[in-house]
Amino acid sequence: MAHQQLPDRLPSQHSQTPPDGGGPAAHPPPAAAATRTRTRPPQPPAPGGSPPADNGDTGTSTIMNAEPYDATPPGGGTAGEVLTRYLHERAAAFLRGLSLRGENEADADALLRGSARRIGGVLHIYGPLTDPGWAEPLRAELGWLSTTLGREPQYAARLTRLLDALRRLSITVDDQEAVTVGGAPPPAPSGGPLALGAARAGALLERQLTLARTRAHSASLQAMGSSRFHALADAIAVLVSEVPLAPAAAAPATAVMPPLAGQAYKRLADAAAALPLHRAAHPYNADAVQASLGADLTADLQDAPWHQVRILLRLSRYAAEVTRPEGDTADRQRLTDAAALLERHREAAESAAAVAAAARTPRIAPATAYALGVLHADQRHEVEAARFAFSRLWQTAVPGPRGR
Amino acid sequence: MAHQQLPDRLPSQHSQTPPDGGGPAAHPPPAAAATRTRTRPPQPPAPGGSPPADNGDTGTSTIMNAEPYDATPPGGGTAGEVLTRYLHERAAAFLRGLSLRGENEADADALLRGSARRIGGVLHIYGPLTDPGWAEPLRAELGWLSTTLGREPQYAARLTRLLDALRRLSITVDDQEAVTVGGAPPPAPSGGPLALGAARAGALLERQLTLARTRAHSASLQAMGSSRFHALADAIAVLVSEVPLAPAAAAPATAVMPPLAGQAYKRLADAAAALPLHRAAHPYNADAVQASLGADLTADLQDAPWHQVRILLRLSRYAAEVTRPEGDTADRQRLTDAAALLERHREAAESAAAVAAAARTPRIAPATAYALGVLHADQRHEVEAARFAFSRLWQTAVPGPRGR
Repeated sequence: MAHQQLPDRLPSQHSQTPPDGGGPAAHPPPAAAATRTRTRPPQPPAPGGSPPADNGDTGTSTIMNAEPYDATPPGGGTAGEVLTRYLHERAAAFLRGLSLRGENEADADALLRGSARRIGGVLHIYGPLTDPGWAEPLRAELGWLSTTLGREPQYAARLTRLLDALRRLSITVDDQEAVTVGGAPPPAPSGGPLALGAARAGALLERQLTLARTRAHSASLQAMGSSRFHALADAIAVLVSEVPLAPAAAAPATAVMPPLAGQAYKRLADAAAALPLHRAAHPYNADAVQASLGADLTADLQDAPWHQVRILLRLSRYAAEVTRPEGDTADRQRLTDAAALLERHREAAESAAAVAAAARTPRIAPATAYALGVLHADQRHEVEAARFAFSRLWQTAVPGPRGR
Repeated sequence: MAHQQLPDRLPSQHSQTPPDGGGPAAHPPPAAAATRTRTRPPQPPAPGGSPPADNGDTGTSTIMNAEPYDATPPGGGTAGEVLTRYLHERAAAFLRGLSLRGENEADADALLRGSARRIGGVLHIYGPLTDPGWAEPLRAELGWLSTTLGREPQYAARLTRLLDALRRLSITVDDQEAVTVGGAPPPAPSGGPLALGAARAGALLERQLTLARTRAHSASLQAMGSSRFHALADAIAVLVSEVPLAPAAAAPATAVMPPLAGQAYKRLADAAAALPLHRAAHPYNADAVQASLGADLTADLQDAPWHQVRILLRLSRYAAEVTRPEGDTADRQRLTDAAALLERHREAAESAAAVAAAARTPRIAPATAYALGVLHADQRHEVEAARFAFSRLWQTAVPGPRGR
């Protein structure tokens, strides 16, 4: 097993906390972690600055992920060493997130989610390097956790997005810089029935999404207290010290890892190539709004290939984090930008679906329904705008893995 | 008066009818026309192929306007001669439209409208060349006529546009080429409540716009039978033979007309420069949809400068028709394209307003209101798309009048 080759990594991982943080980062000793059944590490949380709020999906907000890793010479070490180092770091971040939960739940969950997604993703990409009997079940549990924890912030973000959009759509002449011609007198501000409908639509969405958020929060709490989670946390605690590697991991990293990252990238490139990029790069193609009034399934079917690319893009980003620890900043930035655009795509698509669902509420007023209709179409246009931006970015600069 | 200098133009205007048309084009002799009170010329309509359907505004559809005029050397003749020739042609087209009315009302009205707009526009641009005491009242009457006749086709076009958009927005997975991922099974087609709402919204719009169209048709018929119209037709009949010119018209065309066309163009260029072109040229700026749920006035104020440019663009096109009879096809095409885009802008803006008005119908079902909301936002996005296209066109190729 390769983890013995990197004993000095564990104490040094506190270098990721800001310099004003006192003392080495706390994490349970491997032996203790392996036998604990309580998941909260007994040590106090690392006192460094509060961890970055990682919404995870966009990859734009985390200091943790944006900074280059401690230098691992690209040519040096076995694949097992490189992979182990990365998984150690993520596992330590996971445990740090756990210990943070009492302090700042949102930040802690973001850290847990981001770490869980990365560990799961990397175990997927570099699957041949690890023991499949160990990695497969762990990946499933990590997926469960990040999905469960991800719901609450998603509902919160969706509500913010939709209320912002409603405000934008209800702008009155007083609010905006009125462009007048021929010296028309500035009209008196007037709300009118449409503005009332917008206000009601906002209240309806707020009720529904707040309820969904509260439920998601309860589900998160329940999950965090479950024995299922405790078992997962234990498995991660073990990962801090030991990664069950496969024989293939003994090969040099430069020989084994780039082809695996390349496979991940190829899946991404193939999926992206299957998207209607050419059409999407033509502004105002009105594709995304096309099925606004048809069955929900139509929009879902249309969006699914884009969501798929978003997920594959994330995997490629994680693969790059492992194999290019020094980071080719320009290339990685492009991957990050592309991911952010597809995250916007997902948010808009899901927001549009939430609006359509709200419109099915029985006994709403026609003005409310009208405002929801406008909002739905607006969000579908945001979907289209995100596709447009992604298509332009992807067609001009296709980032690929190095080292092949 | 200059009309005596061009006696050969009148018989030759039948050259605008296809060669298979028999006999010279019919129009009343000037003397008879001046004293008639009946407006229908007694002669049979020109038997040439049916005149092109001129919706007038876009300037893209008329063979009559697209073909170069009979050559007038740009350097030759007085301003009065050039102007008189153009007005003769338009007046003859007007009378041809009149005589066509019994045959094909829509085509006839389009011809009447197009001629009325051109005569009025040219009298405006080249005002200093004509007797203002004669031109100003005539322009007002021409404006009344083209507005009155224009309403019916506008309602018809609006209904077609909105029903098409509803169809596009209600597309189901069966209709479109479903993009599936991972071999998802093709779902069963389902209408659902949204599709029902779309159908009801379509029926509501059809009822309302058909009613408006019928009323507009009655108003047109009433106008055509009015003494006001008869007086106007008489004035146009006089125009076939005689244009009351001002002394300035005796100057060479090359000296007098280009500055006047230049003024018209300058007004256009200034108005276009005042538009938020830079912002509009950025796709998906979401400007046009901004005020969808605010007061109607907000959208109106936002659209007005663009409508203004549309009108000024039309005047510049007419000015070009007079002074550049041979036609600089590339430049004129750009003007025509720009005009078509702003016409699309107007249609989308007015369609959006019609949808908002329909949404205020009492006691509509929420699903209907929702569909109308989606449709409204869709049309406001069409507004934005038209602005985008216009901005791109205008910023890259600003057509200007020659001969300055």
